[in-house]
Amino acid sequence: MAGAARETRVQARERPTSEAAARGCCPLYHEAVELIGKRWSGAILRVMMDGELRFSQIAQAVPELSDRLLSERMKELEARGVVERRVSPGPPVRVDYSLSAMGRDLEPALAEVQAWARRWLAAHPSPREHR
Amino acid sequence: MAGAARETRVQARERPTSEAAARGCCPLYHEAVELIGKRWSGAILRVMMDGELRFSQIAQAVPELSDRLLSERMKELEARGVVERRVSPGPPVRVDYSLSAMGRDLEPALAEVQAWARRWLAAHPSPREHR
Repeated sequence: MAGAARETRVQARERPTSEAAARGCCPLYHEAVELIGKRWSGAILRVMMDGELRFSQIAQAVPELSDRLLSERMKELEARGVVERRVSPGPPVRVDYSLSAMGRDLEPALAEVQAWARRWLAAHPSPREHR
Repeated sequence: MAGAARETRVQARERPTSEAAARGCCPLYHEAVELIGKRWSGAILRVMMDGELRFSQIAQAVPELSDRLLSERMKELEARGVVERRVSPGPPVRVDYSLSAMGRDLEPALAEVQAWARRWLAAHPSPREHR
């Protein structure tokens, strides 16, 4: 049974038998949607669409996010090539962040998410109240 | 200090002083991007764009996802109004899932994410290999 189940998985991943399988399993799409949707990353990316910002400016624009977590997210986004970090020698040392070409090119996707949110979420408030 | 910090947060949230703050703190956008980007949710939503599917068909199309986690995600998406669940009396009982109008309207956003992924992620492979 385990072998059969594994075979089914391999088939579904490598030889999709339906349109659903072909689309659902696109690893690039899957990575992209979870890159922008990881907790706080989408908010950070939206703020950064405005241009180069210092760490403190990003922190101010996403005020519910701790500096520790913001720092972690910025490192992840930089490692993925979406964000660029520029250090200007001091004193005091100044660190600026901007989107790379790859990051700026997320604008149409984020704009569509925002448009959808305005169309639907205002009229259908979230049952969750912890944000 | 705590009071001052809180005041700053409230100001930034309710009376944004910059375009960045205004855009970054949009709670509707923030909720939307994390709704579609929550682990596996984006993949599930993509698969469901094809029409009504049974649980097992969704599971087959997203083969790395456990049934337990898929079930959890479907409940969340249903609670948020994105997915509709239809039970046909049996035996055997049959449960079908489809996107609501709200869910189907995510298509342009997900298509933009997919287009971005194809433009950029294929040429810039992820350093992570655990997927």
